[in-house]
Amino acid sequence: MYEFVPKEKTHKLSKVERVRRLLKSENAQSHIRSLMRALHPTEIAQVLEDTKPEIQEKILRQLPKEVISEALSEMDEETHPGTLLTRLRPEVAASLIKELAPDDAADLLSQIPEDYKEQLLSYMPDEEEEVINQLMEYEEDTAGGLMNPEMITVKADMPKLDALREVVRQSEGMEDFYTIYVVDEENRLVGYLTFKALFQARNSELVRNIMNTDVISVRVDDDQEEVAKIMAQYNLPTLPVVDHENRLLGRITFDDILDVIEEESTEDLLNFAGVSEDENLRGGWANSVKSRLPWLLINLGTASTAAFVLSQFEEVISSMAVLATFMPIIAGVAGNGATQTLAVTVRRISTDGIPSRKALGVIFKELAVGIINGLMLGAMVAIGAMYFNEDYRLGAVVGFAMCANLILAGLMGSMVPILLERVGVDPAVASSILITAFTDILGYLFLFSLATAVLF
Amino acid sequence: MYEFVPKEKTHKLSKVERVRRLLKSENAQSHIRSLMRALHPTEIAQVLEDTKPEIQEKILRQLPKEVISEALSEMDEETHPGTLLTRLRPEVAASLIKELAPDDAADLLSQIPEDYKEQLLSYMPDEEEEVINQLMEYEEDTAGGLMNPEMITVKADMPKLDALREVVRQSEGMEDFYTIYVVDEENRLVGYLTFKALFQARNSELVRNIMNTDVISVRVDDDQEEVAKIMAQYNLPTLPVVDHENRLLGRITFDDILDVIEEESTEDLLNFAGVSEDENLRGGWANSVKSRLPWLLINLGTASTAAFVLSQFEEVISSMAVLATFMPIIAGVAGNGATQTLAVTVRRISTDGIPSRKALGVIFKELAVGIINGLMLGAMVAIGAMYFNEDYRLGAVVGFAMCANLILAGLMGSMVPILLERVGVDPAVASSILITAFTDILGYLFLFSLATAVLF
Repeated sequence: MYEFVPKEKTHKLSKVERVRRLLKSENAQSHIRSLMRALHPTEIAQVLEDTKPEIQEKILRQLPKEVISEALSEMDEETHPGTLLTRLRPEVAASLIKELAPDDAADLLSQIPEDYKEQLLSYMPDEEEEVINQLMEYEEDTAGGLMNPEMITVKADMPKLDALREVVRQSEGMEDFYTIYVVDEENRLVGYLTFKALFQARNSELVRNIMNTDVISVRVDDDQEEVAKIMAQYNLPTLPVVDHENRLLGRITFDDILDVIEEESTEDLLNFAGVSEDENLRGGWANSVKSRLPWLLINLGTASTAAFVLSQFEEVISSMAVLATFMPIIAGVAGNGATQTLAVTVRRISTDGIPSRKALGVIFKELAVGIINGLMLGAMVAIGAMYFNEDYRLGAVVGFAMCANLILAGLMGSMVPILLERVGVDPAVASSILITAFTDILGYLFLFSLATAVLF
Repeated sequence: MYEFVPKEKTHKLSKVERVRRLLKSENAQSHIRSLMRALHPTEIAQVLEDTKPEIQEKILRQLPKEVISEALSEMDEETHPGTLLTRLRPEVAASLIKELAPDDAADLLSQIPEDYKEQLLSYMPDEEEEVINQLMEYEEDTAGGLMNPEMITVKADMPKLDALREVVRQSEGMEDFYTIYVVDEENRLVGYLTFKALFQARNSELVRNIMNTDVISVRVDDDQEEVAKIMAQYNLPTLPVVDHENRLLGRITFDDILDVIEEESTEDLLNFAGVSEDENLRGGWANSVKSRLPWLLINLGTASTAAFVLSQFEEVISSMAVLATFMPIIAGVAGNGATQTLAVTVRRISTDGIPSRKALGVIFKELAVGIINGLMLGAMVAIGAMYFNEDYRLGAVVGFAMCANLILAGLMGSMVPILLERVGVDPAVASSILITAFTDILGYLFLFSLATAVLF
């Protein structure tokens, strides 16, 4: 039995951590096998992700094939488990690939150079080679790219006892399975069989009479985000994948979907903060510069526009420099008000969606929030300005600018993502960079136009 | 068979949407039963979430109990499915509660007033009442709050045939199950039985000889975030929950965890944008004002500090107003640089974690990115300033301020969340509001101190 997963996260980390440290001493390296035996393949994957190539090779050489292959399939794609294979003898690498489920094999192989891949595939039986090659053809972020073609299927016109034997036969040498699919003579998906039905029905009963026909499936070219949504919404541990004629091609399991959801959440946060979703969280500086510089350049453009607006008021600023000191308050606070609204709206779109008939309601709500927050903060800023500058007209100007800018922040923060979604653009690109450009520019316009009108 | 989930999300929405619209016409209301029959309980939940009380009641009155109870358990907690119960006669409401899994029943009951809850519970058999009452005692965000006490268990010293009979007996009237747990005489968890073992072993074989002992479990008071991490990391469809003496109390299924992950991702994005995680995405304006105003007030404080810094340079601004036009560029672009770094660092902490020995590496990387982006953008800003103002010293000042501020942005964006995590504070509270306050203040200090030193 694996050690119980301890309560404190720190203990848990230190278990893998302990092994990592031990591996650094020459002495421990001769005991790799016993060290690793205490770890779950997922934990071995964590160790592999984070040790030097020489030690990785030593670990691989000492563990049973089925453990290594499971660990490889659990490694974070960003740590390039595929390149580990290229450092092994081809026969050894090929034997590891054979242990894997075809979808995991295809994922690993797609990471290594073409010629070495061909070489490894030449060790596989023709049939398996064909399956893996086919899987590599599907786009990575579609149902086809996620599915595993290994699954348990029975025919609708079999008697139950034959189906049970078929399930036992097919389950040999297979990982866990959660659903038994039922197909017709043309391999079209017509239902699924629950374990309960399989246990409880009479032996002679035909599968079609005991199967459940409420089967939900996805098409092979459906987007992975759509797949994740359906599995979450309908609470499905597995989801069958069919082609355009409803022929069963494979199944996606809940654990594939957990990875998709984590990936999408990372992308959402990065997009929101103005980082390209291609940024690898563990990548080097070059990857980060490449994924962030374009957004900073866009921001340089929007900020320069704000600077241009300000330059139109240079005379006002010269003759009343105190106005400039209010710029970070008027633009900054409203910028954050817009960011708040944007976050709530973008998240709502990406979880439940905002149907057309609700869009106006959402915008009105954000307008109301903007008005209330605007009135309160506007009043505070006005009182502060009057108090420190002993000028009630200045107080009125900055208070009004603050209030107006927060109201517009609420409108922009909700309207922009809703409109983008309507026209088919991912609302996540309305990152805070773009939305705060609006509040900067509008804030300066409010502040200095009002000041020009009232104070001069 | 339910209609196939269509490829386009818009079609899918319109199916529920079509029913919603039909429900508005008097004519269709007499056909609620047939309308609803075309929908999956999850879709009925979507309709219920979004219709007026009168129509909700009509729908409830016309559907079979097991469909209603499933739909109620699928409704978004934020739409208060519990209050729907309070509008039904107590016998009817109680009969719906009886249909539910105990964990879903406890969730629903915890939303309704104490006296009505007592009344409903009085209709239940004593045993069920006790189970539900016990479940309501666990904190909502712990393993105990998520678990379902209904599961299939067999004893380690049973022969396989008895175990199989036990599984068939226990699975009557139960929702899907995915794992058969094995306990000892004291109800302590000792392993699990795969279906494969159950199908393939000899009838007389003892369960303890065919069970799998690699069982991973969580404690009843473990945090839901920790539970989600373990299920995702070890790819588990169900996770057993035990007490401090390893006695089996219940199980958590992957679909509970999908909800937790969605909830946590929402919290992360909201925190990041300076919105309290209590904000209900579909809530009204009052809820939003309450969850956002405190952060705006904090922001008013940080922005006022920036304004105070600026007020120290009023003379410089008066005599050289062009400097003020560069404020949005120096402060804004670096603010976004800091936000980018913060998003990548916070997300990395919340997915893989950043162990101590890697912290310095992360900070150095962000420093490098800051230096490179700083040099590039600093040069651009300098050239722009020289070109438009025909003053090379001004160009040097703004270029240098831009570069220095972007470098500090990289340092702050990575160091602040890492340090917060070390001292046990959720790094998500280092929202962009706080981090951009730094870059505002530092940017103004760089710009105007340099200008004072060089240009006057």
